[in-house]
Amino acid sequence: MKGTPRSESELLELISRVLPKPSPDTVTGIGDDCAVIDNRKNNGDLSLLKTDALVEGIHYTSETPLQQVGWKALCRPVSDIAAMGGTPLHAVITVAAPSSWGNSQWRSLYRGIGKAAHAFGASIVGGETVLSPGPLFLSVAMTGTVPRPNIRLRSGAHPGDLLCVTGKLGGSFKSTRHLRFQPRLTEGQWLASQRGVTAMMDLSDGLGSDLPTLAQASGCAFRIVPESLPLHRGCTTHEAISDGEDYELLISVSPRRWPDLQSRWEKVFPKLPLTVIGSLLDHHSSSTQLPWGHDHFQP
Amino acid sequence: MKGTPRSESELLELISRVLPKPSPDTVTGIGDDCAVIDNRKNNGDLSLLKTDALVEGIHYTSETPLQQVGWKALCRPVSDIAAMGGTPLHAVITVAAPSSWGNSQWRSLYRGIGKAAHAFGASIVGGETVLSPGPLFLSVAMTGTVPRPNIRLRSGAHPGDLLCVTGKLGGSFKSTRHLRFQPRLTEGQWLASQRGVTAMMDLSDGLGSDLPTLAQASGCAFRIVPESLPLHRGCTTHEAISDGEDYELLISVSPRRWPDLQSRWEKVFPKLPLTVIGSLLDHHSSSTQLPWGHDHFQP
Repeated sequence: MKGTPRSESELLELISRVLPKPSPDTVTGIGDDCAVIDNRKNNGDLSLLKTDALVEGIHYTSETPLQQVGWKALCRPVSDIAAMGGTPLHAVITVAAPSSWGNSQWRSLYRGIGKAAHAFGASIVGGETVLSPGPLFLSVAMTGTVPRPNIRLRSGAHPGDLLCVTGKLGGSFKSTRHLRFQPRLTEGQWLASQRGVTAMMDLSDGLGSDLPTLAQASGCAFRIVPESLPLHRGCTTHEAISDGEDYELLISVSPRRWPDLQSRWEKVFPKLPLTVIGSLLDHHSSSTQLPWGHDHFQP
Repeated sequence: MKGTPRSESELLELISRVLPKPSPDTVTGIGDDCAVIDNRKNNGDLSLLKTDALVEGIHYTSETPLQQVGWKALCRPVSDIAAMGGTPLHAVITVAAPSSWGNSQWRSLYRGIGKAAHAFGASIVGGETVLSPGPLFLSVAMTGTVPRPNIRLRSGAHPGDLLCVTGKLGGSFKSTRHLRFQPRLTEGQWLASQRGVTAMMDLSDGLGSDLPTLAQASGCAFRIVPESLPLHRGCTTHEAISDGEDYELLISVSPRRWPDLQSRWEKVFPKLPLTVIGSLLDHHSSSTQLPWGHDHFQP
């Protein structure tokens, strides 16, 4: 195969063909919010493993305060662990920084990392620092744990399930919300403990690319009611679908369980909306055409 | 504190001051080959976690074949897990690649990663790929496990212990051995299972900076007999001390146990030398002055 990968999923396919098969204890490898590992020793809990990178010029600009860069770098994998219904445990952090950096830059970056680690209970146990000729680059690897019955994969949804999102969507970049977001950790853990929640993922690339990913993993088509999308003030439906970096949770819910789930949600999280935005369909149906979300391989 | 970190250890000190304390299940965090975690659920085994980065221009050049870059990227954390007496389990890999990369570059890189993963039993369960304006940057995070009695920290050595190294030292760069090295995984696991081996670490920065690190972690001074160093053909003692990237194991051994350990080693690993190069001293003694090994913050 010659040529250039045209999308992230095409590249993932190429990589999966080249790499050896994951070990038999791997419940899900490449292709969910986190890798899920069943080591059968760990008291019945499943282990989670996630790595996530931030690159200057893609996830933030050279003007972004470094404390916010650090906060975001740690919160992104927390959001992925939340989307599995899990709890963060330990993190290791790799930073490639420009050689011009002084103590104050290092301190600002790690203050942001430390604040987020403290807020979401991740313990930073190591890492690596290198000086790089390129721009600032951060990579955070995080472990987590989830009780076996609570694990929620992208592949668990069924035709007929309702699609719901937490919070509101759109405008994350123009509002700089993407630098200050709160991963939905408590919410993800609570949702994963509820009957009827069949699949879950976090909205990082935007509904326009994340929803098709969830639907495909579950072998379903989907229907969205654009008017039902919960919009951040001043945002259009188009922005809510394609901006990305909302870090809200997208879930599928058995319609039979929805009324009960909804009323319990409102008691536990009275300030955060949980909104039905559509439903999953049989895979023979045609999905709603959505403007595409963010793909790291598109300009 | 203003100014610029003058060394990697000064930067680590700064970072440790800013970050929250690691969780109580952390046996060692920053400052050993791997983080060691005791989750008290895992059948008595300890969990290991390591992250390691490769940067073009530091760990390889733009002319290095990508398959060798991939091999090295995966083998470096394997070497760290070997130095704890552990076994690699799972890995996640972050690659920031130039946007000019086509399928053949991606394939070569992941072939090297896959070959090493297969050779040393690490299962690749996820990762992230981004296009970067900078040079190629790789970060590999790896988990591992070690039976509780086998864990070997840098801090376990005592005054009077002998210092030994596996294999030969020096010339790793000029021979390009650093791109094709075999992590001492079986050897590390075997050494960790033997009585009398009190501390272990892998020689990545060079004896000249790694030995003082081990001695300091154990609260000892050290003495080296330069003539005893096992040299790669064509290498000087100076190169053996300061070149770095040998990826051999440095261990401390109780002198009472050494004769027995030596004879068993020769039976199990007849082709690989295990050489006494010196000993540890009381911390009031003065250490042998060594030319410094590699520090990522020195030019």
